[in-house]
Amino acid sequence: MDMKTSTATLRIDGQRLWGALMELAAIGATPKGGVCRLALTELDKQGRDLVTRWAREAGMTVTIDRIGNGFMRRPGRNNALPPIVTGSHIDTQPTGGKFDGNYGVLAGLEVVRTLNDHGIETEAPIEVAFWTNEEGSRFVPVMMGSGAFAKAFTLEHAYAATDTAGLTVQGELERIGYLGTEEPGDHPIGAYFETHIEQGPVLEDNGKTIGVVTGVLGVRWYDCVVTGMEAHAGPTPMALRKDALQVAAKLMQEVVACAHRHPPHGRGTVGMVQVFPNSRNVIPGNVKFSIDLRNASEALCDTMDADIRGVAARLSAESGLPIDVKLVTSFPATQFHADCVEAVARATKALGYSHMEAVSGAGHDAVYMAKLAPAGMIFIPCKDGISHNEVEDAQPEHITAGCNVLLHAMLERAGVAS
Amino acid sequence: MDMKTSTATLRIDGQRLWGALMELAAIGATPKGGVCRLALTELDKQGRDLVTRWAREAGMTVTIDRIGNGFMRRPGRNNALPPIVTGSHIDTQPTGGKFDGNYGVLAGLEVVRTLNDHGIETEAPIEVAFWTNEEGSRFVPVMMGSGAFAKAFTLEHAYAATDTAGLTVQGELERIGYLGTEEPGDHPIGAYFETHIEQGPVLEDNGKTIGVVTGVLGVRWYDCVVTGMEAHAGPTPMALRKDALQVAAKLMQEVVACAHRHPPHGRGTVGMVQVFPNSRNVIPGNVKFSIDLRNASEALCDTMDADIRGVAARLSAESGLPIDVKLVTSFPATQFHADCVEAVARATKALGYSHMEAVSGAGHDAVYMAKLAPAGMIFIPCKDGISHNEVEDAQPEHITAGCNVLLHAMLERAGVAS
Repeated sequence: MDMKTSTATLRIDGQRLWGALMELAAIGATPKGGVCRLALTELDKQGRDLVTRWAREAGMTVTIDRIGNGFMRRPGRNNALPPIVTGSHIDTQPTGGKFDGNYGVLAGLEVVRTLNDHGIETEAPIEVAFWTNEEGSRFVPVMMGSGAFAKAFTLEHAYAATDTAGLTVQGELERIGYLGTEEPGDHPIGAYFETHIEQGPVLEDNGKTIGVVTGVLGVRWYDCVVTGMEAHAGPTPMALRKDALQVAAKLMQEVVACAHRHPPHGRGTVGMVQVFPNSRNVIPGNVKFSIDLRNASEALCDTMDADIRGVAARLSAESGLPIDVKLVTSFPATQFHADCVEAVARATKALGYSHMEAVSGAGHDAVYMAKLAPAGMIFIPCKDGISHNEVEDAQPEHITAGCNVLLHAMLERAGVAS
Repeated sequence: MDMKTSTATLRIDGQRLWGALMELAAIGATPKGGVCRLALTELDKQGRDLVTRWAREAGMTVTIDRIGNGFMRRPGRNNALPPIVTGSHIDTQPTGGKFDGNYGVLAGLEVVRTLNDHGIETEAPIEVAFWTNEEGSRFVPVMMGSGAFAKAFTLEHAYAATDTAGLTVQGELERIGYLGTEEPGDHPIGAYFETHIEQGPVLEDNGKTIGVVTGVLGVRWYDCVVTGMEAHAGPTPMALRKDALQVAAKLMQEVVACAHRHPPHGRGTVGMVQVFPNSRNVIPGNVKFSIDLRNASEALCDTMDADIRGVAARLSAESGLPIDVKLVTSFPATQFHADCVEAVARATKALGYSHMEAVSGAGHDAVYMAKLAPAGMIFIPCKDGISHNEVEDAQPEHITAGCNVLLHAMLERAGVAS
């Protein structure tokens, strides 16, 4: 029997995967159908315990590193090869859903269970990782486990992070029994794949089952301040006003126009606004607001940066009101490795799923993995594009499809022992 | 000697008036040069005591009504005639200035002192009023004393108003000794004049000394809510957003455009904005903001109302986002009586002061008086158009000029006994 032919027809067990998702979602379940399982809490421990028990039952070994990342390993024929890794996170937002992160971890487990069912040996080992504190809801920074693994910051920095009660990451890792001994990053990765709900509306809007993720948008965060002159709304004629809000409103609209000037991936959002003195009959003297600009490459982010600064300078000159635009944070754009993107695309096509190329607008653990190894992501639709919300939902057939794509992309990279 | 000729050369004593203003301003003086003399406080009592002492020293009788309004009367030759009244208020904002209100009262006192100096008897009596709680800083509603006098609301309603400590207007009037017995409104008024700093920048901008006030703008206050859909700023492409802030920003600019479409007195202000959830990386799902529209007649206010509602309906149709525009308060426009406006204009021209017609954008006690009798106002410039602020300032020569105009306008209405 030709091994390649036999694995081509291989499919994961969608019902088993769905069942695992629902069982994990019961830990920290909220009345509205969501999940609250914050990083390094007792509930996170219960989630980790369940997932690692399942892994051991599937014959995998479990390694925990010093930041609490877990690596669940299925040996290959050649264990000198770096493992082909998949994974995500099992911590959630305070009012999170059942799928964000959890799907990526349990899809990896389902891949292993499927290989076990069919007695398939891979050339390279396969590993399923769960990364500590991806959400950043309890401890900052976000993507803490994968970030520490990629040495984006020091372990000491992560350890010292405290929650609102003053408890530290290090103390909580120890308390829940997930303070391992392996040095984060001292762990080879041959390639990395991550399945995830899209957290946006594009796949649903286009009626596609699979998003072949080519990269993650770069992000620039700015604080913007327009300074005018407070004055009484009654006695001050229009021509003699220095209305900070009116100038700010123009710039807010230009943030969106700037995104439209840099398609297809340009994004511009004003999410936060503070008006001073914020009184009904006083012309605003000062308006502070946030700008969030995103695009698919650093070059495009640079272009948008220059664009919005130019617009702000023009509006300032036209109005005579000072406008301060200050960059406060940035996350570089990530392009996933062509080999991984193509492995995902090939698997999707072979499986016959409707699909499209996608970019991720939000950060994921895969962004840090892409610094260390070829990486790629697989998106499936989520209902109305909503996540970080208890109403977060996904269709069982999409859950199954994404996992089948993961299976075949990993098999391509790991190689099937003949 | 022809009496008309003799009063034509009559001038008030600018130094005495300035001195009275500075002496009154010492009661509640703030370190930054302003005044804090909130209505019905111990300081307000001290201010009232000083002003009524000066009035009695000038031979006037003092009547206090049940809302604490004071009427300081100089008899005429024919005391069956209704008095020609001037006045304003002596309470201030918490960080108020020396001139707002206080000028109007002390200018009236200076008119009487000047008539006394020259032994001039008027036909009709002359009265100087101080109206309780014009500012509304401590007790709501604003313009309480003149409003109760004009029966815009009941005395019981005013009495029941409480400050943040729970103290009532009635209790505080009693405590400071200014709970009189005369029924508010049971007091004839032949004509009413009020001198006031402009509280806006128009006179200064035009280099004019006197504003001949023709009326007070009508005001419409609205609450406006745009409802969109909250979504993550990263994964949501521009075309699939329902960004409440972007639609709100357009409507905010239309508020100003609407004012410009209805010159010369149309005014449009957005002073207060609340964005939900007001998070940097979340597309706003809901934006609430205030709209303040003003114009010189009810017809023009109605036109602006229809204009902004039409624009909101169009923006809602274009964007697909519901926009709710709700009228929450309105103050009708006031046209001052031609006889009083012309008396002010004639006096100004006879005195040779530079002048222009003006409308008041803010409310004044004169608005309520205009419901009861012919009324008019005299504006003088204030520095940078700023009031309700400790830096509020006015030039002594303008203070003098406004009082000279008041003198001659009142003499015209009261008639000089020959």
